[in-house]
This record gives sequence, structure tokens and C-alpha cells, in this order.
Amino acid sequence: MNAEIISVGSELLLGQIVNTNAAFLSQELAILGVNVYYQTTVGDNHLRLTSALEQAQSRSDLVILTGGLGPTKDDLTKESVGALVGKPLVHHAQSLHNIEAFFKKRDRPMSENNRKQALVIEGSHVLPNHYGMAPGMVVSSNGVKFVLLPGPPKEMKPMFQNELLPYLVEELGGREAITSRVLRFFDIGESQLETDVLDLIEAQTNPTIAPLASEGEVTLRLTVKHADKNEQKRLLDETEELIKGRVGQYLYGYDDTSLMEQLFLQLKEKGCTIATAESLTGGKFSGGLTSFSGSSSVYRGGIVSYATDVKENVLGVSNETIREYGVVSLQCAMEMAIAAKKQYSADIAISFTGVAGPNKQENKDPGLVYIGIAGLAAESIYYELKLPGGREAVRDRAVKYGCFYLLNELKRWNKSE
Amino acid sequence: MNAEIISVGSELLLGQIVNTNAAFLSQELAILGVNVYYQTTVGDNHLRLTSALEQAQSRSDLVILTGGLGPTKDDLTKESVGALVGKPLVHHAQSLHNIEAFFKKRDRPMSENNRKQALVIEGSHVLPNHYGMAPGMVVSSNGVKFVLLPGPPKEMKPMFQNELLPYLVEELGGREAITSRVLRFFDIGESQLETDVLDLIEAQTNPTIAPLASEGEVTLRLTVKHADKNEQKRLLDETEELIKGRVGQYLYGYDDTSLMEQLFLQLKEKGCTIATAESLTGGKFSGGLTSFSGSSSVYRGGIVSYATDVKENVLGVSNETIREYGVVSLQCAMEMAIAAKKQYSADIAISFTGVAGPNKQENKDPGLVYIGIAGLAAESIYYELKLPGGREAVRDRAVKYGCFYLLNELKRWNKSE
Repeated sequence: MNAEIISVGSELLLGQIVNTNAAFLSQELAILGVNVYYQTTVGDNHLRLTSALEQAQSRSDLVILTGGLGPTKDDLTKESVGALVGKPLVHHAQSLHNIEAFFKKRDRPMSENNRKQALVIEGSHVLPNHYGMAPGMVVSSNGVKFVLLPGPPKEMKPMFQNELLPYLVEELGGREAITSRVLRFFDIGESQLETDVLDLIEAQTNPTIAPLASEGEVTLRLTVKHADKNEQKRLLDETEELIKGRVGQYLYGYDDTSLMEQLFLQLKEKGCTIATAESLTGGKFSGGLTSFSGSSSVYRGGIVSYATDVKENVLGVSNETIREYGVVSLQCAMEMAIAAKKQYSADIAISFTGVAGPNKQENKDPGLVYIGIAGLAAESIYYELKLPGGREAVRDRAVKYGCFYLLNELKRWNKSE
Repeated sequence: MNAEIISVGSELLLGQIVNTNAAFLSQELAILGVNVYYQTTVGDNHLRLTSALEQAQSRSDLVILTGGLGPTKDDLTKESVGALVGKPLVHHAQSLHNIEAFFKKRDRPMSENNRKQALVIEGSHVLPNHYGMAPGMVVSSNGVKFVLLPGPPKEMKPMFQNELLPYLVEELGGREAITSRVLRFFDIGESQLETDVLDLIEAQTNPTIAPLASEGEVTLRLTVKHADKNEQKRLLDETEELIKGRVGQYLYGYDDTSLMEQLFLQLKEKGCTIATAESLTGGKFSGGLTSFSGSSSVYRGGIVSYATDVKENVLGVSNETIREYGVVSLQCAMEMAIAAKKQYSADIAISFTGVAGPNKQENKDPGLVYIGIAGLAAESIYYELKLPGGREAVRDRAVKYGCFYLLNELKRWNKSE
């Protein structure tokens, strides 16, 4: 099956937004074993969209369109596809109901043009939108399937995963026997990881091993082809063991997880509660931890001690420590963690202090970070890091290191102790 | 002049990398006044690349290609364009010299296939590469200009800016006088905004008005064409005034800013310090505010009161309030804000409490949010919101509303009062 992706939106042609949808869809289709040979972007223009559709129809079996399903008169993807396949747009009662509910929930008046979003191509398979208003749809014509998805990634991605994927897998007559497992590593560079497993990467053909680096993390994607599920698993397990023998201490999780999610799951599993004291990171750690539903069962709360006198007066770091070592110091990090653990009656507490930059602080260089952990070991632990990058990169990496260190601590922790 | 962009690379079709080049080039061409009507991505495949080139040749005056200039046999952009325009590849002495120097500087042996990178299409205008090995080039055929640029953004962007842009401007007979101003709105939906200014959008041709929605915000981009800078500004000001007369109360900033940045700048300008008490948002507000260098001059610190007893014991919300109204209540939001202002000795404090979801809390629906503000008015103010979307959407929108409400409050605030 050959596919192509058509992204619709003048904002893409003006370069106002980057087309992440095409990359996401291509990746998903590659995993399904579907070849993507073209990605095309056109504006909100009926003639040029129609020209792209005609061409796609002549060379592909599956044409996935994103964008142009909005309420305004610029949005004409449905109209253009409908005209191409010779089918009118008809009202879809359930979609209209969803749109009305959307406005009702927000307590806002629904404007007339929002009704337009409830129109679908006659005879199409409708894909409900649980994160926005525009429904998606699949319409077949002359052996070509056209899939219409909304443009905003927050709506498009869940619709692809939850609504389109099961439909496609069924239509494809069962997913091809290709599956992937992504191993996620932290605290090791891409070139170091690749050097450590280079011979495996070169020798392996099934599964293949593909490294990828992003956001200070490195992943290895193992992709296996085999008709038998059990054999797939055995081949993946075997290769994973080989890799773990080399770089196992840096492996923190699988597939679409994150360090923060792993930390949340571990805290929950061990019944361990946590508190935070953030200076450098200003609430980014707690903001991340509370993104998970159920985080209230493990997260007690925390303090963002940004001003120096707040560290002293509210958090209770000793004036002596601040005078002698400064607020960017391992001593301050440790006192912050100990104070947070006590004030918030938590099993464990983590603290962050450091210089985010771009300027020096206390004559210390940007990127110098101290992380304190109180509560698990007999004494509290601290880490000193020198992180590269700009202000936000330093803060984001500090949060990731905090998760990584806590995960290591939790390995040796039992509630009963 | 009509242009199109062809991105070459199988890694794009596999979704391994996101195509940021197309967005960059589109944005630059828009500023030049060049219309981009298509962006196409093809793999490293001679037949499909040739098909894309033939089509581009039939409809565009300028075709910019990125990628496929590397040393391996996969890379065949030069070969395909050369074949299309009927010109051979020839050695380019200066480029070969650069490549040799590149290896010498890194003290690495030069492999034979790197010599291939010094080949250029005969008769082309060569664009030197100061950040990598592959030279770019411009070749004209039958009134169509083909521009070949390297794929890595670190090489492509400086080559565009420093080598191609001066060449294009000269070819275009001087840069067209086009400029844009983006107006940013919050607390108004896309369709409502468009309804309110539809007649202006339809009537206006210079500047044009283009709406765009993303992440709960809406923008209007005004694009003006005029040779005279003063006249450009006058035309933009005039249209902005017309728009402000309709929806001015929702306008919060211009161009590449954010609600949080505007809040930070306003707090700094007014010398107003702030503290936070976050439950629902778990530190996301403070994490955002502290992303700005210099935020320590306005941000005192805050508390993340996630567990109910933390709200009571650490923050000092009354047990009576919690028993009677619950933690998701305007009363709790107000007490949180007042307590944070006092504990952190700030001029103003903001609090967030609510139900992020996906489950109900205190029998209240996900999306119900209370924001409290203490410190400016004689009495503290609170807002009740019903926000749509999933857990993170609710939390992110709550943060944006917090910024928006604070900006409104700051309008009537003077430090001396």
C-alpha cells in the first residue's frame, strides 16, 4: 500500500508553523508497513488543493489530509474532496451534538459558522473528535481512500491513534508483522551510546537497531519483522539483552514514556510520597509531575523559593549557609530538600538550585546546578551538574536529571523500611 | 514571482526528522514578497524526484530544493536537476579546496566520495558552504530558476541568508516593500473573532488581514505592501485601530510574544512583585514566569499546595472553608492568594485551584477552575472558568487565563498607590 500526505493550510506555506503533522503521520505509517512516497503542502485554495488531490489519486492508494476542517470560509478541505469524489456534504447529527456540547461546557455562545464543522462527506466513515470540534472522515473512491484529519496536532494525533489506526489496521487485513520497541536512555550521549553498540547496530538485521537523539535523551528503536508474535517478542528480548549488557545502567524506559512518567509510576508503585523545593527550576519539576492523573496520591506539594529571603524565611534554610556558601551550593540544596520533606510531611523530597543563566550568579557560571534528595538514605544526597545550553535547556535538563536520580534512589527503597 | 519548495530525503518520508527547512524558507520568501504555493517532500529516488521537478518546472518561477547534496550514492539532487536541464556535472575547484580544508582542520582523512560533493551543475551560480562541505547552486532553464541547498539546517540557513538572499534580491530587482504585524488575542474564539471583523477581512486588500488560531489563542496577521516605510506603518496603524474598535479588549500583544512574556514585562515595568499558590497547575505558572532572565526581580516565590492538608497546614487556608466549600471553590482560591501574598511579602499574588480531570473531584466536573488574585484591588478578586479539553489543556489554559487576568489588573495599578 502506497500512501501520501497532503497538509492543507496557508499558515504552513507562509512558514508561520512547522509541519510536525507530516512527520508524525509518516512515522506511524512506516510502523504500519505503509510506504509514504510524497508529502505535499498546499494553501487554503480550492484549485491548488484539487490539483494536489487529482495527482495523489493517480499515484497513491491512501491519501491522508490534515487541516482545513475549521469553521471559517478559508477552510475547504471537505468541500474539495467532496467535489473530487462527486459527493455532497451532509449534516452529521452526532458531530453537531458534540460541537454544541463543546460550547455549552465552555459557557460560550456558538456562532453560526461552527455548524459548518458538523458537515461530513456523504457516505464517509466519520472519525469523532474528542479534543476539538471538527470530525474527521474516511471516504473511498475508485480504490483510493481519502482520510481527512483536523490540523491542530492536539486533535489530529489522538484521532489518528484512537479512531483511524484501528480502522486502517482492519482495512489492511491485519497489521503487517512489523513491530518496534523503543529503548530510552538518559545520562549518556548519542555518540557514546552509538560507539558502545556500534557492532550490534551493524551486525543486526532482524531486529534492526536505529539510534535517535533528542532533547538530551537518546533512544534505540528495535524493529522486528516476523509473522509470529511470540517470535517477535523473543527476537526483541534477545537484542535488548545484548544492548543492556553494554549500556543497561542508562536505560530508563520503553516506547512513549518519559523520565517524569517513570518517576510517577515508581512513586505510585512503592507508595512513596514526595515534596519539592525548587529555585532554579521555578516549579517546572512539580508542574511536570502533576501532569499525570492520580499524581495527588504521591505528590504532597512544594515550595518555589525564588527570592533569597524566601529560602531563609519561608523554607528555613539557615542564614549561615546562605552567607557562607551562597544559594547556589550543595549545602543550600541539602537544606532545601530537608526542609521541604519536613514541612510537607513527605517520604522523600527533592531540591533544585543553580544558575540558569545567561548571567553569572554568586560568581558561578550558568549551567552549575545542585540537586538535593532527602529521605531515602540515612543522610541526604546531593548532585553537582555542569549543564550546557541556554536558560531553558539548563532548567529542562535539571528536571530530567532530578527524575533520573530519584529513579535510581527508588530502586533501593521499600516503604516498610 | 511564484515559488515552490522541494525537500529531498527519505528520513523526512519516514518521519525521522521534522521538516523545519520548508517553514524557514517559506517565511523568508514571504518577507521577500515571493508567493510559495507548494511544498513537496520526496525521498532519495531519482524517478520520483524527477517527477516532482517536472511538475515544479511547469508551474513555478523559482524552485528551491534542500537535501540530497551529501557524499553518498543515495544523494542525487544535483544529478536529477542536471539531467532535467540537460547539463553535466563538472568539478568546482574552489569547492574541492574547501572540502579538503574542512578535513584538514578536523585532522581527519578525506574519503574518496567526498570529492563528489565538489561537483556542480555546469554553468550554475555556486553558493559556497561555510558550515559544511556541499556547495549550493542556482541554475536557470527555460525561465525557471532551480536553487539547490544542503539539507542540514545549520548549513542551509546561513547559505540562504548570506549567499542566496543577496543574489535573489538583485535578481528580483530590489526587495519588495512587504511587512507584517501580528496582533495576538486571548479569551475570544477564532470564529467569534472572525465574525466580529469579517467585513474588514473581506474589504481590506492593503494590508490584508489573515486570522490564525493555535493553543487557545487567536492571531490576526496584517500584511502591507508599500514602497514607503512611513506609509507602511500608517496603513498598519489605521487597520489596527479599526480592529481594536471591535475586539480591542482581547488584544494582548504583538508578533512573537506570549501572555507570560507580556506579564513578565508589565510586572517589571511597574516594579510589582508577585507570589503564587498553585494547586491545579502544580507549578506550571511559576515554571513559565521563571523562564525569563531577570524574573528574580519580580517573582518572590510560591507554594504548590497539592495535598489538601498542605493547603490547610502550610498555606493556612481555614479548615472551615475547606469543609464548607471544598478545595475547588472560589473561597479556597481567595484564601490561597491572600496567604501567598502575605507569606511571600509580595505586592500581588495569584492562586489556581480546579479539577484538571479526567475524573470529577468533590463532585465537580473536570475543567472547573478558580483563579484568585490578591493585592491590587481593595478586595481580592476571583474568576470562575469552565475549560474544555484534556488534563494538560485545562492546566495550560488556566495558566494563560491567569496571565490575562493579571495583565488586566496591572493596567490599573501604580506602585505608589
